[in-house]
Amino acid sequence: MSKSEHTTPVALGIDFGGTSVKFGVVAGNEVIDAAPSIATEDYTEATTLIDAIVRVVEDLRARHPNITAIGVGVPGFVDFHSGTIHNLTNVRGWKDIPLKKIMHQLTDLPITVENDANCMAYAEWKQGAGKGMDHLVCITLGTGVGGGIITHGHMLRGANSVAGELGQTSIDYQGRKGNYGNMGALEDYIGNNEIAADARDHYAAEGIDRNISDCTPAALFANASEGDEIALDIWKNIARKLATTIVNSCWLLNPEAIIIGGGVAKAGELLFEPLKMAINEQLSPAFSDHLKIIPAMFSNEAGIIGAAALALDKT
Amino acid sequence: MSKSEHTTPVALGIDFGGTSVKFGVVAGNEVIDAAPSIATEDYTEATTLIDAIVRVVEDLRARHPNITAIGVGVPGFVDFHSGTIHNLTNVRGWKDIPLKKIMHQLTDLPITVENDANCMAYAEWKQGAGKGMDHLVCITLGTGVGGGIITHGHMLRGANSVAGELGQTSIDYQGRKGNYGNMGALEDYIGNNEIAADARDHYAAEGIDRNISDCTPAALFANASEGDEIALDIWKNIARKLATTIVNSCWLLNPEAIIIGGGVAKAGELLFEPLKMAINEQLSPAFSDHLKIIPAMFSNEAGIIGAAALALDKT
Repeated sequence: MSKSEHTTPVALGIDFGGTSVKFGVVAGNEVIDAAPSIATEDYTEATTLIDAIVRVVEDLRARHPNITAIGVGVPGFVDFHSGTIHNLTNVRGWKDIPLKKIMHQLTDLPITVENDANCMAYAEWKQGAGKGMDHLVCITLGTGVGGGIITHGHMLRGANSVAGELGQTSIDYQGRKGNYGNMGALEDYIGNNEIAADARDHYAAEGIDRNISDCTPAALFANASEGDEIALDIWKNIARKLATTIVNSCWLLNPEAIIIGGGVAKAGELLFEPLKMAINEQLSPAFSDHLKIIPAMFSNEAGIIGAAALALDKT
Repeated sequence: MSKSEHTTPVALGIDFGGTSVKFGVVAGNEVIDAAPSIATEDYTEATTLIDAIVRVVEDLRARHPNITAIGVGVPGFVDFHSGTIHNLTNVRGWKDIPLKKIMHQLTDLPITVENDANCMAYAEWKQGAGKGMDHLVCITLGTGVGGGIITHGHMLRGANSVAGELGQTSIDYQGRKGNYGNMGALEDYIGNNEIAADARDHYAAEGIDRNISDCTPAALFANASEGDEIALDIWKNIARKLATTIVNSCWLLNPEAIIIGGGVAKAGELLFEPLKMAINEQLSPAFSDHLKIIPAMFSNEAGIIGAAALALDKT
């Protein structure tokens, strides 16, 4: 906590997840202090959850009076300019909430609210694996599949500040129907739960009964590492689907690098080797020759670091 | 030709197509003079074709001494900064040709070389249906399917200036294998020839024998206009596939508008009505609420106007 005693301004990053809200005081690319998480399921209304968040904020400010801004990353569509959340995936009672305005009234600090995957992309672009790049695509793999895009050296937000939703793009126009009526969304194939369900089916087709809890990405990673051919095949299928969305983003955006983060990315070469092959097979050299396909630098703290960095850069 | 006698600088736009090279002297958004096209098939080498192009350029300059720049749109991947063409689709002998350098040496004028679909997008953005928009996606439907993207109020070129290839993006990760090894590229479903071949198969499946020459987009438009249910179905299928790529570009880029040009777009409401429905069905309101889906303002002259505008803006 030594750095917190300095007078250098620091920012508080808040990572608002589907099940918990996490807090970190960030200096540069480092989380220098944290507070216990809040479980979102304990709160049925936005107002009571916001009150709980603000109590934690006040505790952290007491320890770090040099907190000059707060950044909040949220799992949903956000109007970045007004800081209003359109809706939150998997959190009850969060629809059209003007979070920036409410939190500013309660804390009197500048508040930045941004999509969580955009926060991760911002962290990688400002401090991490894509530092200083002008054209960059970040994708994060977990329960959901999120993304963030940099073009022309700026975070791409688009007309209503909701750009970068790689997980909602289609890999099959006749495929599975997703949350927004969209057909064949990548997230509906390689979200953690979909990977597990597909893997269970894949084992079953080979005559092997598996519980879904033995088919998580972590279990599949362990199995594939031990040479389980079915698990290796499953990773190849994941890579092929993920490659389709990445290849599409390359044809559209011609980025310098693709940065891949989130839990599934921890499969390392099991994922990256077939992934790189599938990407390079499906691009003209004009697109693939200098393309970097790299793991994210930040792990679980990416959202907190990115939200804080964004908040500090805006002040 | 009256405007050409003015001393206002004008630019010469050259639209280098798969079968012919077209020329137009452009003032603002208007082609004020033209020259006869050159058929590319008459030339087996790049150097002789360039010589023929330069002879036409000199003729037009004799009539319009106020031509101060030349813009060339080409059907292939271009390094915009060096003006080198990586390769041209369907034109023999065009690989790694430094067109900008060669033409500058032969004409002593500033030369701009750009992908043809980017030229069309530039025309629509600077002078046409997307005038002044900061975030814009243009798609052009013909023998091939091309695109051009504006983000942050700039033409998006990306790391190697080859961005915007909407026609190469996949709509089916297990689909048809395309020119670059890419699976399920949109162009391989709704390029003119693919539309005709699929339509012939569609009629055959209904027990109707049709020549492929009676299955062109123009013929399908005529049939559908007369109430032919099969032709109407074919247009719905085209709309559904096109919608997938457009929806993907919306999830990624959150543009203000999608502009659709090229021959197939002439099907008008036959295409636009099912297309708009399929797009709106597959987007969150955060993306679709203010999205405009509009036909291009320019038609066959879009490439010439865009190439000329780009050349003039660069000088």
